[in-house]
Amino acid sequence: MRGEAVAVDFGVTPFDGLPLPSRVTICEVGPRDGLQNESTVLPVEVKAEFVDRLVDAGHTVVETTSMVHPKWVPQLADAEDLLRMVVPAPGVRYPVLVPNERGLDRALDLGVRDIAVFGSVTETFARRNLNRGVDESLEMFAPVVARARDAGIGVRGYLSMVFGDPWEGPVPTRDVVAVATRMMALGCTELSLGDTIGVATPGRVEDVLDALVASGIGIDALAVHFHDTYGQALSNALTALRRGVTRFDTSAGGLGGCPYAGSATGNLATEDLLWQLHGLGVETGVDLHRMVDTSIWLAGRLGRPSPSRTVTAFAG
Amino acid sequence: MRGEAVAVDFGVTPFDGLPLPSRVTICEVGPRDGLQNESTVLPVEVKAEFVDRLVDAGHTVVETTSMVHPKWVPQLADAEDLLRMVVPAPGVRYPVLVPNERGLDRALDLGVRDIAVFGSVTETFARRNLNRGVDESLEMFAPVVARARDAGIGVRGYLSMVFGDPWEGPVPTRDVVAVATRMMALGCTELSLGDTIGVATPGRVEDVLDALVASGIGIDALAVHFHDTYGQALSNALTALRRGVTRFDTSAGGLGGCPYAGSATGNLATEDLLWQLHGLGVETGVDLHRMVDTSIWLAGRLGRPSPSRTVTAFAG
Repeated sequence: MRGEAVAVDFGVTPFDGLPLPSRVTICEVGPRDGLQNESTVLPVEVKAEFVDRLVDAGHTVVETTSMVHPKWVPQLADAEDLLRMVVPAPGVRYPVLVPNERGLDRALDLGVRDIAVFGSVTETFARRNLNRGVDESLEMFAPVVARARDAGIGVRGYLSMVFGDPWEGPVPTRDVVAVATRMMALGCTELSLGDTIGVATPGRVEDVLDALVASGIGIDALAVHFHDTYGQALSNALTALRRGVTRFDTSAGGLGGCPYAGSATGNLATEDLLWQLHGLGVETGVDLHRMVDTSIWLAGRLGRPSPSRTVTAFAG
Repeated sequence: MRGEAVAVDFGVTPFDGLPLPSRVTICEVGPRDGLQNESTVLPVEVKAEFVDRLVDAGHTVVETTSMVHPKWVPQLADAEDLLRMVVPAPGVRYPVLVPNERGLDRALDLGVRDIAVFGSVTETFARRNLNRGVDESLEMFAPVVARARDAGIGVRGYLSMVFGDPWEGPVPTRDVVAVATRMMALGCTELSLGDTIGVATPGRVEDVLDALVASGIGIDALAVHFHDTYGQALSNALTALRRGVTRFDTSAGGLGGCPYAGSATGNLATEDLLWQLHGLGVETGVDLHRMVDTSIWLAGRLGRPSPSRTVTAFAG
């Protein structure tokens, strides 16, 4: 019985009367956001195989690593080795997190063509995560974004603590709009809205998306990045989909977590989102079974079972 | 940090433009559907304390046990002892699963005031679970429902395999309508739509609900019973809520599973639904923190951690 149920095509019934996007793009964040929050540090060869497997499964955006100081994120200390090892596939983007100009220099030297900067809506998290406030962190990003754009490089801007902050509590929507607007003004080509501690519910998701669109940011420039701390991630993704969002951040097998937010539960699992999207008739280009195989393989390397419900069901 | 985030009120933003129900009723199925699928058999005193704790947390419907033969469900062999032990609280319903007239006699002798019969939409599952086909099982239920209604007792009719069947694959909506209509004609006062193997996605949920309502069954008579096998349960519950459903089956801590469907993942966790409903401003009357405490306590008795994301986040 185990593993069999999903071999059957359970059919597709798109929402009636609802113009869901016919196709969405998943930004697979497992190698960066996932692995950076796992206690086990994988060998660089395993990471390179992980990235290749994700591309083989059909991913066209794989956030590969981060150019931060190894002192802060020892899990990604091998960033340069990994980038030298991964052979880019045609049509696939491999964004790399870059905190400052020094990181940008290193990324450019390695031929990186897509970067991301990691901002915060809240002052407290900015100071704890970036060691500087919101204003100062935007000042730090400004030359990074400008130089990247001059080099023809796409820049994703992460907004963390969009829906709630463990120290400040609920985050006012106007604060999200204020920081989002400034990130776009710097030249970001895309914003990823992070529910870093996983507290959001669908009404808040609608409220924030509507406010951002009303401020003039196009829905096509918005990605959503939900964590499943309280089991809300997929419902929130569904809500964003209904609002027209076409960019979703997920991690293979639900890898990850948030070291600042006290929970072992990580990102929305790619496989759980795929099950939903494919059931709704929304194309992703990503093969569910290959993803499950990859997450089972990786769980073996990490020595802990995948938190993804879908992977668990297949693994039996 | 652990456990702190949820002490903060993250605010309520109801769906704009959407008339969500202002209040819903949760049917807590942990003691029956949950425990019957756990490998550990708890002492009857622990079960009685579990039921009392659920009522103390605010539940007004607690499915308590099942009058099936101990040979088939040894976990619930103590049904009569448990029913003698639980002291009914005012305004609380304690439904009991009753397969046949003999079970009804036992239930009536014990003063049971709410029962449930467990049917199947698919022929294969009916034969495997009830040892008779759909027609014969409805014939078996007929006198049970009639006698219960004559005695002024409410009868919930379960429909299992509503969205997919592990042997038959996708289940046609017309089959769901056909069996649902016959169950209502027998005199059931409520129908619970079971995604027994957890394969449904939101489009299918809308399709089935719309077809049932179009057939003349009131939305108020419909409950939804989602399993989280592929992580879809809460998204499907959200979809049903938007369609006007006000009755949700959940189990404390996500207890349970399906012995016929090969997955350790059980019912939608009560706590994960509470997080969403309360965030949406929908009243339940159930206290989240008391539920989390109860699920952590029960996990200790069962010797395995709760699969609920919310309970896991609190447990830290």
